Amino acid sequence: MKIEILAIGSELLTPSFVDTNSLELTRRLNDLGLDVVRKTIVGDEAEEIAACVREAVRRADVLIIMGGLGPTEDDKTREACAAALNRPLLYKAEIYESIRERFLRRGRDLPPSNAKQAFVLEGADILPNPNGTAPGQRLVEGGCEIVLLPGPPKELLPMFEDAVWPRLRARGHGSTGRRVLKITGLGESDVDTRIADLYPPPGPLRLTILSSLGQIELHVTEFSAEKEAALFPKLESLAAKLLDRLGDFVYSAAGEDLETVVGRLLKAGGATLACAESCSGGLLSGRVTSVPGSSAYFKEGFVTYANEAKIRALGVPGDLIASRGAVSGEVAGAMAEGARRAAGADYALAVTGIAGPDGGTPDKPVGLVFTALSWKGGLETHRSIFIGRRDQIRFQAAQKALDILRRRLSRPEGT
Amino acid sequence: MKIEILAIGSELLTPSFVDTNSLELTRRLNDLGLDVVRKTIVGDEAEEIAACVREAVRRADVLIIMGGLGPTEDDKTREACAAALNRPLLYKAEIYESIRERFLRRGRDLPPSNAKQAFVLEGADILPNPNGTAPGQRLVEGGCEIVLLPGPPKELLPMFEDAVWPRLRARGHGSTGRRVLKITGLGESDVDTRIADLYPPPGPLRLTILSSLGQIELHVTEFSAEKEAALFPKLESLAAKLLDRLGDFVYSAAGEDLETVVGRLLKAGGATLACAESCSGGLLSGRVTSVPGSSAYFKEGFVTYANEAKIRALGVPGDLIASRGAVSGEVAGAMAEGARRAAGADYALAVTGIAGPDGGTPDKPVGLVFTALSWKGGLETHRSIFIGRRDQIRFQAAQKALDILRRRLSRPEGT
Repeated sequence: MKIEILAIGSELLTPSFVDTNSLELTRRLNDLGLDVVRKTIVGDEAEEIAACVREAVRRADVLIIMGGLGPTEDDKTREACAAALNRPLLYKAEIYESIRERFLRRGRDLPPSNAKQAFVLEGADILPNPNGTAPGQRLVEGGCEIVLLPGPPKELLPMFEDAVWPRLRARGHGSTGRRVLKITGLGESDVDTRIADLYPPPGPLRLTILSSLGQIELHVTEFSAEKEAALFPKLESLAAKLLDRLGDFVYSAAGEDLETVVGRLLKAGGATLACAESCSGGLLSGRVTSVPGSSAYFKEGFVTYANEAKIRALGVPGDLIASRGAVSGEVAGAMAEGARRAAGADYALAVTGIAGPDGGTPDKPVGLVFTALSWKGGLETHRSIFIGRRDQIRFQAAQKALDILRRRLSRPEGT
Repeated sequence: MKIEILAIGSELLTPSFVDTNSLELTRRLNDLGLDVVRKTIVGDEAEEIAACVREAVRRADVLIIMGGLGPTEDDKTREACAAALNRPLLYKAEIYESIRERFLRRGRDLPPSNAKQAFVLEGADILPNPNGTAPGQRLVEGGCEIVLLPGPPKELLPMFEDAVWPRLRARGHGSTGRRVLKITGLGESDVDTRIADLYPPPGPLRLTILSSLGQIELHVTEFSAEKEAALFPKLESLAAKLLDRLGDFVYSAAGEDLETVVGRLLKAGGATLACAESCSGGLLSGRVTSVPGSSAYFKEGFVTYANEAKIRALGVPGDLIASRGAVSGEVAGAMAEGARRAAGADYALAVTGIAGPDGGTPDKPVGLVFTALSWKGGLETHRSIFIGRRDQIRFQAAQKALDILRRRLSRPEGT
């Protein structure tokens, strides 16, 4: 089944717009074993839109059109589709009434511009929009099923879930099993080397490598012709092989964030955590506490940017800072120990480094980061040099700290 | 000039891929007063690619094709373009040599698969790629200038800057002035109402409203037919009107982040800052310290998630927490005062709230956040209810705190 997405709106062609709608739709289509074969993005020009619709209808089995259904002058999807498909727009009193009621409930009159939202293409079904004024539409033209959805995500996504996805599912194609392995501590070429002979996998399996800052994701999918396949044995077998090759560099085989994995490990051990941060400036605590329920294990964070704060809040000896420098393994260790003591936590992580863009020296270049973990049984410190901009160095520093804790918490007891 | 972008690669049609390349290219084209009229994204199917190229060449004056120039089986752009344009691929010994040398410099032999990168379309100019193996190509077909660029950003972007942008600039179209106003504390409809009569602006001006979490951006551009226009008087006049309508809800008229603006104000006043955070969990400190040079004014952050930390580190009275609750204006105020005192800072911000998804009650629902600012002259606290997911509530809480400080720092002294 050839599915195309046509996204409409001049704002989509500006440098600041990131199209998350089509990513979300793609994810849900993939769940049915369906792929998007082409995505087109076009501005608010009626003729351009009409041309896109005319061309896509000839190619696709399903065409999902999103955006341009609003009340303003710029919203031209209805008119452009009418022209492209040679179908008149019909006024629907019931849509007009429901839009008017929506405004009345908020104590407002219906602005005249919204009246155009009451027009639908001849022969189209109306898809109700509980979260906005523009209804969706569905029609069939030749062999192509066309769906018109509004652009705002909070309107589009529920409408897609309620009115589009179940129908595509019923048209019946199959289903897709998916596994996401997340890796940190290895570069892309290291991962490549370890799994080269497994790539590309045969038949109904697919393996995608997505490399981003401080982590690499392996997406494994298996397509099944069964509509509701429960088991994907080939997928599990490939995932097991990948896990075997990549060992404990894999921090999640279920697509979770590193902070989520660390949180679960802490919770399972009934342990608590404190964080002491210099160059990461609160990002590490921020990631730990981004996990719902993290108050069960996160006790306290110390963002000790100034040396006096390191001394006062964490008890780092002033002469240690003077002799080794604030960016040193010794100070990272003292920060971790001090944070653990001050917060009364079982574990404490510390980060100190040079995030740049300034402040680097030949001895201590931008990107140099020391991370430390203190626990009842001891202390470990690590030295890393990260590449990138300030935000990238900070992210990688927090990633490294979380990974040190993950590895410690994953060890069998007493080792 | 009609410019289209064609992005090639099946990974671009997966749910996890965000296309930043085309955003960056669009920004640079906009700088020349050029717009992208259509963007098409297609997978690694030679026939699909060829169809896209054939269609786009008929419509566009400039077609930028990116991706699919790598050495693997999946890289089919060269072959697809050859088919679409009916031009043979020619082997270029000099490209082969330069790729081979690139590998040799790294102590490796040229893998046989890379040999295909030495083929170019008949009549095409070669665009050198200092950051990778695949050269770019440029050719003219009918009235359309076609540019082929590799997909990896670190290869594509420098090549675009060096070999594509200057030529488009020389073809001469004009230039664009741009102003970005950033607003917080007003909803989209409030902004709409205030500026409705200025929208859409006439003639060479353009005004785009981009609404995101906790902030709204107004992008104003003016196109000039001069290649290197220095002045954009109409743009400045419209920007001044917008500023007048939106008043001090505008935190930057130069597209800066709120944390950058706050940092500059602190620096200008020679003042220092501490942050005490509960529900935002370090994000506020993280944003403050994301600004290069923030060590000049940021002294310390206290991520006092547990009540005992609020008591010990900030001196919040335990019976205040017991009587008013940790999420209360009183506790927010005590956190801010305690942080200012403990850190010896001139200003201290505090955030306490319920970020969810759990922990809400009818009295204190998820999204309820108290923010406070303590300074030498006094204390102010604010109560907000934010809508959204946990991360969205946390972001808005930090945004609100930063905005309180911005407003205080922007006041004339003694008011």
